[in-house]
Amino acid sequence: MIEGVQITDLKVIGTDKGDIKHALKSSEFSFEKFGEAYFSEVHQNVIKGWKLHKEMILNLIVPCGLIKFVIFEEKTGQFMEIEIGEQNYKRLTIPSDLWVAFQGKSSTQNVLLNIGSIEHDPNESISKNLDEIEYCW
Amino acid sequence: MIEGVQITDLKVIGTDKGDIKHALKSSEFSFEKFGEAYFSEVHQNVIKGWKLHKEMILNLIVPCGLIKFVIFEEKTGQFMEIEIGEQNYKRLTIPSDLWVAFQGKSSTQNVLLNIGSIEHDPNESISKNLDEIEYCW
Repeated sequence: MIEGVQITDLKVIGTDKGDIKHALKSSEFSFEKFGEAYFSEVHQNVIKGWKLHKEMILNLIVPCGLIKFVIFEEKTGQFMEIEIGEQNYKRLTIPSDLWVAFQGKSSTQNVLLNIGSIEHDPNESISKNLDEIEYCW
Repeated sequence: MIEGVQITDLKVIGTDKGDIKHALKSSEFSFEKFGEAYFSEVHQNVIKGWKLHKEMILNLIVPCGLIKFVIFEEKTGQFMEIEIGEQNYKRLTIPSDLWVAFQGKSSTQNVLLNIGSIEHDPNESISKNLDEIEYCW
């Protein structure tokens, strides 16, 4: 585990009509502040990344499909990987100053929800090409 | 339109790797407070409702599938209906004290995200059976 990263089990309440799935409560430890919520889709086998947020804390939940996340901590050279989604329904909380990339794993729609602590601001994130951080996908 | 209900166009940023879809920013008029975010799935043709929240303001976005919402204002007897989802990507903001029911329309997964202004509390919502409010589905 990389320091500050949290993986939280989320409750799924099954019903005949369709499930209720928890995402984030304001009273939870993972919640700092609400800045913006947005969705990002990623097609099967496609990789989005790398991106590092200098300020935003990410709360990531995958309601549709399955997504592999890889987190890279530059100062320690440490990698961390996890797949979350319908088959492993958890929340991934990522503090600022870590590199993140993610890959669609399901042949159906892969959708992540990020509940970020600040609004989108192109000046607070930096990007690298996929091959600039060596990782065997 | 029922007073206080807002329908907001949301931006979709198309990319080859998968779309980015806006949901809610803290600076937007529709945002009051972050209490809890959760997902609710509803199978095709199935209806969930009726439910009235005495306090919670709902911000509803449908990232997967298509869902028909029906809102009923008891004091005026007025109904309002809208379908939102991938084919009509908008946010539906519903103030408290209105009856809401919704129906899955797509044969694929129908998923709504609610960003509610307060945390779930069974004492602040009331339910009615579907046939207790007459509406031709």
